Amino acid sequence: MTTDKKFRVESDLLGELQVPQGAYYGVQTQRAINNYHISRKKMRDYPDYVIAIAYVKLAAIEANHELGQINDEISAAVAQACREIIDGKFHEDFPTDMVQGGAGTSVNMNANEVIANRALEIMGHQKGEYQYCSPNDHVNCAQSTNDAYPSTIRLTFIRMNKNLVASLQKLIAAFRAKGDEFKDVIKMGRTQLQDAVPMTSGQEFHAYANNLEEEVANLERNVRLLHEINMGGTAIGTGLNAAPGFAELCTKKLAELTGEPFELATDLVEATPDTGAYVSYSSALKRLAVKLSKICNDLRLMASGPRCGLNEINLPPMAPGSSIMPGKVNPVIPEVTNQTCFKVIGNDTTIMIAAEAGQLQLNVMEPIITECLIENLTWLPNVMDTLREKCIDGITVNKERCLNMVRNSIGIVTALNPYIGYKNSTKIAKEALATGGSVYDLVLEKKLLTKEKLDAILDPSHMLDPEEMVK
Amino acid sequence: MTTDKKFRVESDLLGELQVPQGAYYGVQTQRAINNYHISRKKMRDYPDYVIAIAYVKLAAIEANHELGQINDEISAAVAQACREIIDGKFHEDFPTDMVQGGAGTSVNMNANEVIANRALEIMGHQKGEYQYCSPNDHVNCAQSTNDAYPSTIRLTFIRMNKNLVASLQKLIAAFRAKGDEFKDVIKMGRTQLQDAVPMTSGQEFHAYANNLEEEVANLERNVRLLHEINMGGTAIGTGLNAAPGFAELCTKKLAELTGEPFELATDLVEATPDTGAYVSYSSALKRLAVKLSKICNDLRLMASGPRCGLNEINLPPMAPGSSIMPGKVNPVIPEVTNQTCFKVIGNDTTIMIAAEAGQLQLNVMEPIITECLIENLTWLPNVMDTLREKCIDGITVNKERCLNMVRNSIGIVTALNPYIGYKNSTKIAKEALATGGSVYDLVLEKKLLTKEKLDAILDPSHMLDPEEMVK
Amino acid sequence: MTTDKKFRVESDLLGELQVPQGAYYGVQTQRAINNYHISRKKMRDYPDYVIAIAYVKLAAIEANHELGQINDEISAAVAQACREIIDGKFHEDFPTDMVQGGAGTSVNMNANEVIANRALEIMGHQKGEYQYCSPNDHVNCAQSTNDAYPSTIRLTFIRMNKNLVASLQKLIAAFRAKGDEFKDVIKMGRTQLQDAVPMTSGQEFHAYANNLEEEVANLERNVRLLHEINMGGTAIGTGLNAAPGFAELCTKKLAELTGEPFELATDLVEATPDTGAYVSYSSALKRLAVKLSKICNDLRLMASGPRCGLNEINLPPMAPGSSIMPGKVNPVIPEVTNQTCFKVIGNDTTIMIAAEAGQLQLNVMEPIITECLIENLTWLPNVMDTLREKCIDGITVNKERCLNMVRNSIGIVTALNPYIGYKNSTKIAKEALATGGSVYDLVLEKKLLTKEKLDAILDPSHMLDPEEMVK
Amino acid sequence: MTTDKKFRVESDLLGELQVPQGAYYGVQTQRAINNYHISRKKMRDYPDYVIAIAYVKLAAIEANHELGQINDEISAAVAQACREIIDGKFHEDFPTDMVQGGAGTSVNMNANEVIANRALEIMGHQKGEYQYCSPNDHVNCAQSTNDAYPSTIRLTFIRMNKNLVASLQKLIAAFRAKGDEFKDVIKMGRTQLQDAVPMTSGQEFHAYANNLEEEVANLERNVRLLHEINMGGTAIGTGLNAAPGFAELCTKKLAELTGEPFELATDLVEATPDTGAYVSYSSALKRLAVKLSKICNDLRLMASGPRCGLNEINLPPMAPGSSIMPGKVNPVIPEVTNQTCFKVIGNDTTIMIAAEAGQLQLNVMEPIITECLIENLTWLPNVMDTLREKCIDGITVNKERCLNMVRNSIGIVTALNPYIGYKNSTKIAKEALATGGSVYDLVLEKKLLTKEKLDAILDPSHMLDPEEMVK
Repeated sequence: MTTDKKFRVESDLLGELQVPQGAYYGVQTQRAINNYHISRKKMRDYPDYVIAIAYVKLAAIEANHELGQINDEISAAVAQACREIIDGKFHEDFPTDMVQGGAGTSVNMNANEVIANRALEIMGHQKGEYQYCSPNDHVNCAQSTNDAYPSTIRLTFIRMNKNLVASLQKLIAAFRAKGDEFKDVIKMGRTQLQDAVPMTSGQEFHAYANNLEEEVANLERNVRLLHEINMGGTAIGTGLNAAPGFAELCTKKLAELTGEPFELATDLVEATPDTGAYVSYSSALKRLAVKLSKICNDLRLMASGPRCGLNEINLPPMAPGSSIMPGKVNPVIPEVTNQTCFKVIGNDTTIMIAAEAGQLQLNVMEPIITECLIENLTWLPNVMDTLREKCIDGITVNKERCLNMVRNSIGIVTALNPYIGYKNSTKIAKEALATGGSVYDLVLEKKLLTKEKLDAILDPSHMLDPEEMVK
Repeated sequence: MTTDKKFRVESDLLGELQVPQGAYYGVQTQRAINNYHISRKKMRDYPDYVIAIAYVKLAAIEANHELGQINDEISAAVAQACREIIDGKFHEDFPTDMVQGGAGTSVNMNANEVIANRALEIMGHQKGEYQYCSPNDHVNCAQSTNDAYPSTIRLTFIRMNKNLVASLQKLIAAFRAKGDEFKDVIKMGRTQLQDAVPMTSGQEFHAYANNLEEEVANLERNVRLLHEINMGGTAIGTGLNAAPGFAELCTKKLAELTGEPFELATDLVEATPDTGAYVSYSSALKRLAVKLSKICNDLRLMASGPRCGLNEINLPPMAPGSSIMPGKVNPVIPEVTNQTCFKVIGNDTTIMIAAEAGQLQLNVMEPIITECLIENLTWLPNVMDTLREKCIDGITVNKERCLNMVRNSIGIVTALNPYIGYKNSTKIAKEALATGGSVYDLVLEKKLLTKEKLDAILDPSHMLDPEEMVK
Repeated sequence: MTTDKKFRVESDLLGELQVPQGAYYGVQTQRAINNYHISRKKMRDYPDYVIAIAYVKLAAIEANHELGQINDEISAAVAQACREIIDGKFHEDFPTDMVQGGAGTSVNMNANEVIANRALEIMGHQKGEYQYCSPNDHVNCAQSTNDAYPSTIRLTFIRMNKNLVASLQKLIAAFRAKGDEFKDVIKMGRTQLQDAVPMTSGQEFHAYANNLEEEVANLERNVRLLHEINMGGTAIGTGLNAAPGFAELCTKKLAELTGEPFELATDLVEATPDTGAYVSYSSALKRLAVKLSKICNDLRLMASGPRCGLNEINLPPMAPGSSIMPGKVNPVIPEVTNQTCFKVIGNDTTIMIAAEAGQLQLNVMEPIITECLIENLTWLPNVMDTLREKCIDGITVNKERCLNMVRNSIGIVTALNPYIGYKNSTKIAKEALATGGSVYDLVLEKKLLTKEKLDAILDPSHMLDPEEMVK
Repeated sequence: MTTDKKFRVESDLLGELQVPQGAYYGVQTQRAINNYHISRKKMRDYPDYVIAIAYVKLAAIEANHELGQINDEISAAVAQACREIIDGKFHEDFPTDMVQGGAGTSVNMNANEVIANRALEIMGHQKGEYQYCSPNDHVNCAQSTNDAYPSTIRLTFIRMNKNLVASLQKLIAAFRAKGDEFKDVIKMGRTQLQDAVPMTSGQEFHAYANNLEEEVANLERNVRLLHEINMGGTAIGTGLNAAPGFAELCTKKLAELTGEPFELATDLVEATPDTGAYVSYSSALKRLAVKLSKICNDLRLMASGPRCGLNEINLPPMAPGSSIMPGKVNPVIPEVTNQTCFKVIGNDTTIMIAAEAGQLQLNVMEPIITECLIENLTWLPNVMDTLREKCIDGITVNKERCLNMVRNSIGIVTALNPYIGYKNSTKIAKEALATGGSVYDLVLEKKLLTKEKLDAILDPSHMLDPEEMVK
């Protein structure tokens, strides 16, 4: 193979291949570039992903160094290379497609190669002079893709989850602020889309806040599962080629370097093909998506109108709503949120099939699990910030409209049960519905209760805090 | 093995086993009974399923007889046994759990055994005297589970689909009748839950009818794929042990016996493990479910109220709606329809995974595909009949309420675009919204159009049939 | 309405209706019977479900009694009726279809009616004389379907989950026993279905046990979420019509009666429509299903053969495998397990859509969530017991076959990396593959290592416990 | 609002906004840019999408011109602008995020604005001088997002589907070529992963070709549904503001311009919110994905080994398989195909939920349906090309290995059924399995058949074409 000046030649099991002269990546990354043109999305598009693998490699080299497996010079150079990547350098050299075969080998080798070549440079060698520092023998020492890759993606998800939770918490705060703002707005509660009994708009928004608050805890519970890693298991969890003590030490190093409470899995043979933690974490994201979607459905419903709908609340207008209907303003932000949630839900299906497809000592479908979770972890914070800034923060409520609906409703008859019984209440309700009359008038007309008593019972504020009321 | 008088002893590859003396089924069915206690649902619960396999066996014996493979006496007895099952006899002898391993072997052997024992009886022998008529050598002659079972379930789905389509067509007719009934009811059309432009309630119900009408055609297209069968392919599609001509003849017989246009697959090796037709048919059921669910969502929305919702239509009350709220009537029938649709949608996921799990020359997961499709084909006609009888047929519309909403709406401003332009229309809409005023008054006030012209444009009936209007 | 002697007439909001004379249920249950013919599955088919609602009603009556809302006589009678149901009586009187509209109102009223009528009987009255004890005013006192129903299904799942976990733990023990039994069987580990490095069959089965062990904890974590209930929230969580203190007291009573650590939700308005706990619990069942399915895939793969497959293990033969292929024995039990898991996975899709469909103050789709979870909780223990008894317990391993594969493999070259480097090892591997030669011979031939050293490195037992080996 | 020189100011319903001076897009696109930062994927990344909307706008302007709605000068300028976009110009001016709210309004307005501004330029005006050519009044004349957007995405899918089918057909041809190449390779067929009866490797690969061939027809059937469009329905299908005849003429124009057999939907009110065609088309893509995934599972299984697996076929090595295991080559291309298929399957879930979420006269979730289908239509052709070029084309078969497995198998006993019966065959099989002996020897030993006869029956080539054999 003759080679252009702009290229250097590297070789591997399959033979020689040209690699761009200036590239820090090497022959195996080049094969990945050649093999995978699927998704247009590259590893380098996600800094958390690149940084995570650098942390894993840094922990490994420190452990290997401490265990006497790699000498001082190489260790120092490799460690420096890792730190530079953590600091944001060389990310462009991670061009591997997010969707790949090989169970993450391309991702692992991409990191091994970039780190080795940068270490060579640091040590004063040329790129590709792997006899001085090899991607496999040094950077990947005591590792296999099958432990380094899962540990990497776990750290990636953990890092991105922080961003997700931050967005979620700001969103919760926004709902809570609206709950406070609307605490005196009395409105009709609805079950099965039918008028039920009164509540406040504040209760409704506080309920959204509390409903999402549970998701913070749920994410926390599930992200905790991602902290169990299998470093040192090497190929299939038996630890072949890892020095004694490496598994524990590398895990400890990774925990120290990242500040994350990583723990070594108790059974590395079990842990290596296991995708249970991803399934659980995806389920948690799906649950968040299901809730967000339900809330956005509610917002769109309550904002329906302006004249022929519920018209209880007003969403801030973000765009003219129609190319043909002048003056129409649509709930575009809840809509984009719904749709983002649907994607997260679909990704959960993908992750489920991928998890089920594991075979024997490995699950080779982890890259698509990674692609899906990283997509979720990119889209969801984006959409939660959008929802908060461009919708929730600006919601106003139509207080008078809400109160009028309560006053006009039949549902308030429920409050009479304890006084006149379910059967009598039913009769009143039925008659009100048939005649268009009001519950209030009918009760008086039938002399079922005195006006004074009735006023006390039907006072909406009493209905909202029934325990306050003396029977 | 000593045996109770109430039992007879049969044997197979695995050894001897007691079978109830009077049972038409034999040792392999008994093993299925012993092995599978999963779903509580038995083959015998679904007559179409039992009848379908009897048809397949009848076609096979007739073909084998005509090809000289099975003698007159046995053929006649086997055929009679099959016809008796088709006529509804011996269904109790199909106790196999709907969820089983073995790719349908239990189902096939259950039929082979019942038919063989009944044929023995017809020929004057005792049950179990398989030397005179064997489940494997005679009833199953030239067949394998791997062709007889898929052919059976296809016929089952085809039969049950007729019932489904009948229910669907009655439902369509019910929507159409309401479309006719409500053809003069003017109401506000809504997009994105926001007031859009006027339409009639009749158009809305006709649209539901037309929307579902497409499902008749879609089911037809997809059920057509089920008519391609692989009889004669035997174990893996190579036709081993089937007499020359059996595949074609058996297919022809089955088509004649059932009146269904069965065709032999062109590549039996391809056809044997293929589950594509089930995936497509399930997709068609899912599409029907998605549409039914959307329609029921609409019905519940339009019936929301009675005082604090859209309140455009009234669903017939089917049950008191609440154990606590007197007078509340809920849209229970659309709700049960939604939920049934959700199950069908979930079953589509199950079928997808099962289809993907085929390996090499067979897909062993066909029984769960069968269970899911039969469940769909039982639940969906039930719920469509329920929806029609207990909901659609009794829907009434609140004509005045609908018209008032249109008159009060801002959306009618859209009709002014061609006369005053989108920008001016937008200004009018904006002002109406801000002031609570009416579009009509504002246009006159601003002298944008004469009263006469404006009346003509804003007449809702003109808006509904814009082509009628002269510009 | 004239009525047959075999019937009594009851009435509700919708009018009069005949109820069978002897039925403990009343008019609203009769409406449910008339309205819902969907699934063929009834509430009474699931004793845990019927018992759970009796517990909820018992807790409520005790709380109401203690709070002075219901007098001694009625309270005692209602409590006795509840206890009788808990003891297994009157279950036949719960004929409501598992798939219903009304958000569980039919289920709640079914219980209210049966309990009221039995209480009437106890008090010496006739069935239907609700003036003495009313389903709504007494049995349902301080409750709504919207708190009683969710609390009921939560208790149902909690009860059934115990059975599930018991089956799971027995299955884990079975895998662990096989792990112990096979601890000395050396076999080839495989990643990406390619020969990797040696391991023991014992490690593999222990890994299955450990993998499933995590599911016990995961179920525990998720079932814990089901213990948060909303009793006392009544219709929409505002507590209308519940006596002060009822919510807390009823929750405490239910916890005492059942021994389950129930807690009152902190925000009842939030808790009423919330289905997050079901989504999470379904996700946990799905995760279990995904793992079980993966394990069964492995078992089928390892048992493939007998002559043209991996043939590492033998599953106990449970049925002749083929109607046409003599001697064939199929992995029918793993197959039925896979399929059951697929159904659980599909049900997770159904539950997700149902959860997303909640609107405003209620999720009316809870009955289908219930149907799906109860189906899962019935099928999964069945299939895990089946898997254990009819498959795992009887697995044997082909020790010699396993060892021969290791000896003949190229994968053992991995163990040479630390001694001759990845590049040299690659060359050996490549040559072995090309020539059909053995790694062992090639290393000696090329004089890369002494025979003594090589023997030590390649001893499979060393490879299995690499830390033991001195470099 | 003072404005930078680099910006121009435009205004809409919501007020004024700065737009980059040189941008062809206008204020509403600018709002979309500001509102939606979700997916990082823009409309401009998919030329088929941009071109499709230009075709729709071109058809509309031609129809409006012919109907006398828009004058010659504006029509000519608008038409030229559309044709330039079709030719690939101005695509950079379509920066709208693929995931948006507003049911496609941003996409429609983006096109309206780019076209209007380019038309203004052509007519000698400045960008933004919409009094001479307005995005709404001229470019969008007689249209709404609710007809223009669905028509656009349908054309997009139709265009991209051609590319998909082309890749699929090349893949089919590759499988067929391998089928021809391997037509004489006798191998063991397997059902339920157990040895069944002989077949050829050629039959297997031909079966893959035939299996996928059905997908061409299935895609064709389903893409046909996309040809039904609703142009002229405007906002909700009532055709408000479209000139008489516009719907038919615009449809005809679009068909002529694109060469696609577009037809006008018969009920435009029905067609406007309907997403049935997308559900069906997604189902077709899912079915293709399910089949591709199953085939790749098979390939990985048959290529398992090299020494401890089936080792029937060899996939071309595309990358060193392991960072730790030298010489390991993994089936990376089938693996990446599996994963891509899983994503398509997950997207089907997303599309299903989005379709179910339609409400009343519109489905606002169409943008996520678009995003998913365009993702599928990008990834699937990529991966099918990859699969063909980097895997299928280079597959070789291990002929001798395959034949040896057949010779050594027990499954061949099936061929004896017609001669010695199922019971006797079973005994032979059982004994062979127990003793490790061969079927051949046992039959002779037991004198069940003459050697000559036995040789004839067991000749694998006879088993493969059983009809050839004289009984």
